[in-house]
Amino acid sequence: MPELRKDPIIGRWVIISTERGKRPTDFPSHTDRIDGRMCPFCPGNEAATPPEIMAIRDEGTSPNTPGWQVRAISNKFPALKIEGELNREGVGIFDRMNGVGAHEVIIESPDHDLELEKLPPEHAANVVRMYRDRMLDLERDSRFRYIMLFKNKGVSAGASLSHPHTQLIATPVVPKRVAEELDGAQRYYEYKERCIFCDIVRQELHDNLRVVSENDAFVALAPFAPRFPFETWILPKQHESRFTRITDEDIIAFADTLKDTLRRLAGVLNNPPYNFMVHTAPHVNSHELAYHWHVEVIPKLTRVAGFEWGTGFYINPTPPEEAAKYLRELNETPPQTHPVSASGKH
Amino acid sequence: MPELRKDPIIGRWVIISTERGKRPTDFPSHTDRIDGRMCPFCPGNEAATPPEIMAIRDEGTSPNTPGWQVRAISNKFPALKIEGELNREGVGIFDRMNGVGAHEVIIESPDHDLELEKLPPEHAANVVRMYRDRMLDLERDSRFRYIMLFKNKGVSAGASLSHPHTQLIATPVVPKRVAEELDGAQRYYEYKERCIFCDIVRQELHDNLRVVSENDAFVALAPFAPRFPFETWILPKQHESRFTRITDEDIIAFADTLKDTLRRLAGVLNNPPYNFMVHTAPHVNSHELAYHWHVEVIPKLTRVAGFEWGTGFYINPTPPEEAAKYLRELNETPPQTHPVSASGKH
Repeated sequence: MPELRKDPIIGRWVIISTERGKRPTDFPSHTDRIDGRMCPFCPGNEAATPPEIMAIRDEGTSPNTPGWQVRAISNKFPALKIEGELNREGVGIFDRMNGVGAHEVIIESPDHDLELEKLPPEHAANVVRMYRDRMLDLERDSRFRYIMLFKNKGVSAGASLSHPHTQLIATPVVPKRVAEELDGAQRYYEYKERCIFCDIVRQELHDNLRVVSENDAFVALAPFAPRFPFETWILPKQHESRFTRITDEDIIAFADTLKDTLRRLAGVLNNPPYNFMVHTAPHVNSHELAYHWHVEVIPKLTRVAGFEWGTGFYINPTPPEEAAKYLRELNETPPQTHPVSASGKH
Repeated sequence: MPELRKDPIIGRWVIISTERGKRPTDFPSHTDRIDGRMCPFCPGNEAATPPEIMAIRDEGTSPNTPGWQVRAISNKFPALKIEGELNREGVGIFDRMNGVGAHEVIIESPDHDLELEKLPPEHAANVVRMYRDRMLDLERDSRFRYIMLFKNKGVSAGASLSHPHTQLIATPVVPKRVAEELDGAQRYYEYKERCIFCDIVRQELHDNLRVVSENDAFVALAPFAPRFPFETWILPKQHESRFTRITDEDIIAFADTLKDTLRRLAGVLNNPPYNFMVHTAPHVNSHELAYHWHVEVIPKLTRVAGFEWGTGFYINPTPPEEAAKYLRELNETPPQTHPVSASGKH
């Protein structure tokens, strides 16, 4: 059973994988690439993954056989396990609990080489629909306090398989980083009686220095104080604390903004490795008025080093105003597969 | 002038290098190695670095010429600049200030290939003495609130030069990560009237599950909730909030523990890239009773990915009890060059 342990000084939880404990020789050398063996995410290899939990597939095809467009499965090597009770306990001055949670993988397409930004609009919308539906399903498990949806693309961004996929992990505690955002947003709300993210969207659209793109429902922008070069956030223009309340109409607009943002990053930065994370309010105690869901996309261009680890400070060599300008001006006419983003004023 | 900007939601500061702004094509590919050109840190190349600030050198040799054993210089490409006033100001809802600070490099030895863990004991003690003396000097500048000393070893840990060196950055604000530790330690102190780090040292020495080594003054241990595999902390056994108050006697014991820890990590993990950071109380408002200085050493074996960035949770595949066992048992008889560490009971 994996174990959750809490740092007694700053209250940060970590997941200790006691079952698949890695020995010193198990760590790959740092030049290792994703290997070229049989891809378990390709059609025909469905038996190589845990059984599917949910799939969007052709009529008449059976689960765990080809014919799917988007496929959700349990992670074969889960960070947390779905079975069991929490069992919080003290160990002297320390705190631990069982590593209960969920760890799923959403395979975005049967095509091994088709990146998210190149999916046809309806297909990309189906991927986002699957994001929402898997999160809604996991929200019903009362042991879970938070569900983090994220994508790792490329070896140096932490991917171990190259077939395009997104992951989600449900945790039995609200993670520290999430709690910090909720607290910060709440403090601002108590002071101003306004959502800080709504204020940011308003100021950014007005200043127009850091906006990358916008459509009727979403804006993509370089944040004022980005940790990383070309860090880009996507926010809904209308206030909404939870991603899972996204409407079918907005799913199309969001999928388009996400694809357009990834396409711009790929174009300007030559297909960089990246992570993106959906930041949403927890489904319990949902800070309705103060919090505002959004996505953070961070291309992996620099290395995190001792200063960052020690201080939490980040050194960013690219001002966000310049990053936004490069991304905004990539090309004024998006390619055929992105008709919706043409409505954004760049 | 570099600029400090504050994230309005969680209050995290970032340093934006507006002067040497990196364009999309300036980022190295991720397989780049440290290059083999002339090393500016080798003796004879002193003119290739900014002038030395302080050095331990042979009698009769002149500054900025060979003859030094340990040499402190300004970083040629500083993250923050020493000249100027802070000029805090608002930008709409955002906050910024000038990037005033100091960024220095301590070259640990004239030998390009001699790692810190292999230095003779007196030489290693001189390196630690230089750490202390540079920090003491910077503490006198009233613009600075914190001084972070850190080492990046290896490309994937963020080093851009391979000649052994350590860095320090003085910042005009107390960094978020440091403030969190101070707050956590203070809360514990208010509740228990004891230092949490003293309690950790006591419990760890008693349990003896995660201790890597100890001598009269210091203990090296795998923390209960480590973010990374083989993460190792070094703590003074006696309570002391600030690193810069280290005595000459303890400098020898600390240099020995540091070397011994790095030697064990190198031996068990085949010379991994790593970072270490000195965590100390700020020189202003120094949390004397609640905080306890220590060093965190993190080998770079895993990649930080979307889940970690989004949640602040870390997934660690190696339980600290196993890591400590490997490190503790590396070899009972340290090699000839480490006579002092033989006094530690492992």
